[in-house]
Amino acid sequence: MRQAGRYLREYRVIRAKASLLEICHRPELASEVTLQPVERLGVDAAIIFADILLPFEPLDLGLSFAAGEGPIISKPIRAAGHVARLASFHPETDLGYVLEAIRLAVRALQGRVPLIGFAGAPFTLASYAIEGGSTRTFAETKRLMYQDPDTWHALLDRLAGIVGHYLAAQARAGAEALQLFDSWVGCLSPEDYRRYVFPHSAKAIALAGEAAAPVIHFGTDTAGFLDAMAEAGGDVIGVDWRVPLDKAWEAFPDRGIQGNLDPCALFAPRAELKERVCDIMDRAAGRPGHIFNLGHGILPHTDPEQVRAVVEMVHDRTAARV
Amino acid sequence: MRQAGRYLREYRVIRAKASLLEICHRPELASEVTLQPVERLGVDAAIIFADILLPFEPLDLGLSFAAGEGPIISKPIRAAGHVARLASFHPETDLGYVLEAIRLAVRALQGRVPLIGFAGAPFTLASYAIEGGSTRTFAETKRLMYQDPDTWHALLDRLAGIVGHYLAAQARAGAEALQLFDSWVGCLSPEDYRRYVFPHSAKAIALAGEAAAPVIHFGTDTAGFLDAMAEAGGDVIGVDWRVPLDKAWEAFPDRGIQGNLDPCALFAPRAELKERVCDIMDRAAGRPGHIFNLGHGILPHTDPEQVRAVVEMVHDRTAARV
Repeated sequence: MRQAGRYLREYRVIRAKASLLEICHRPELASEVTLQPVERLGVDAAIIFADILLPFEPLDLGLSFAAGEGPIISKPIRAAGHVARLASFHPETDLGYVLEAIRLAVRALQGRVPLIGFAGAPFTLASYAIEGGSTRTFAETKRLMYQDPDTWHALLDRLAGIVGHYLAAQARAGAEALQLFDSWVGCLSPEDYRRYVFPHSAKAIALAGEAAAPVIHFGTDTAGFLDAMAEAGGDVIGVDWRVPLDKAWEAFPDRGIQGNLDPCALFAPRAELKERVCDIMDRAAGRPGHIFNLGHGILPHTDPEQVRAVVEMVHDRTAARV
Repeated sequence: MRQAGRYLREYRVIRAKASLLEICHRPELASEVTLQPVERLGVDAAIIFADILLPFEPLDLGLSFAAGEGPIISKPIRAAGHVARLASFHPETDLGYVLEAIRLAVRALQGRVPLIGFAGAPFTLASYAIEGGSTRTFAETKRLMYQDPDTWHALLDRLAGIVGHYLAAQARAGAEALQLFDSWVGCLSPEDYRRYVFPHSAKAIALAGEAAAPVIHFGTDTAGFLDAMAEAGGDVIGVDWRVPLDKAWEAFPDRGIQGNLDPCALFAPRAELKERVCDIMDRAAGRPGHIFNLGHGILPHTDPEQVRAVVEMVHDRTAARV
């Protein structure tokens, strides 16, 4: 998950001077923010500070962020012509500032912890591009998917290429692992996932994999099609808290697993929080390949001390096992 | 699911004259709107026109609906004192207008189809009461749940009593089946469902069951704890499209099942829509106890002709089987 955010005082200091997009655009700021959680929380990896929607800028979809609101895409994709008009995309030139931030962050980390690069998955990116922003129903997304499958597949194929090449470029810039965020794919039925998403996620992961960095394939609400997600690819599959870790793992025993603490558990008293952290670790006990993480992004108003405590709990329990 | 809504022209005619709450408050309007889908769509049951948040009016939580927005609860529940201050609740006097609407609708239906009564489940009502409206994260809800479990359980116990008695009163007024909507409970982990929700849903259903009308226990995103939902009660368990119908049914083979067409499937071309309807019915084939329905509420901009077509498809395929 993205680790830096408004819940960190040191991040708010930067945000007072620069917008979200400005931080992303300025590699020295993005790198600084990327390192904040490493210093503050003692986590075992950093994740580059960026936004999954950054590719929408060079694609000329009219990306902006309204204050306190989610993203706005002023030129949404609703028809075949919109896909055909998408600008060409070259990660090195179009998102060179992210790659530069990765190089700076890797240098600043001095090998203390590895850096993770990331991108949005084709479905999740498409849902923003089609809806023009956030949605609860995904009605426009599914409408296009069902009514105009040719345009749908053309769009997702384009996005898969973009995302795959972008991830590979991040690995070449120094990211030691790559995460593909399919945050909203859980709005689909298992069958729709297979038909409308699977081939495109598979393409993106295959392209990303050419850089030989391990790929974490993340989604939420995916209990119904974890097997298909694993088949699409990923060395590690990310799961949320809606399914117990050990039960989720049964769907892809040959892969690693990432997860799956409910971010809201960080609001629980320390003893209750510890019980939940231990339960997750117990469910992973006896098997290698578990990356402890939240099941989705950290929420505003989270107390950083609670996050730091979780990192310590995980370290203590891991050490006790070895 | 609520069948009447803005997607129906005849409903918009009424809404031009009266707000959502005004329609609910006036039994003759609520009854009229209740019958609209029966006339227009040919469905096999009517569901009383009401809102799950109506009990918040006599409970004095400051319920209103902003134009084009969701509900607003101006006096949200955040502490033990707020629960203690909740007004007492008597369905016959406090929501007598709903019971009167049921009596009018039953009379107007003249036995053509049965009428379904409904209420919000304790968790879903609590989430609105605590958040003060709609939410994507349920952060305040879970914060109270984790930080102050005594207040949480006191609130849910109160709501369970309210909802249970309200449902039983609806059955006495003439509703032939009752539906408990736990629309948002799927934001929880299976363990949290067991610990924080299960006993209260069980209490509500037990109280409702005293009226001897069958109970449909509905939720979305519940693939991880369908067994626990069934254990809490309900003659029929409602499921959404995130899990295939036959697979969901494995979790409660001794109950009926309701579902599970994605409301967005109504945007699909007719042939594609039919394929999806048939797939659901095939998954239920050879077993009694399937109520065909959407997996969640109908969306605005849905073409009523598509809904009518689905009703016909279900009738045709059922007739072909007999």
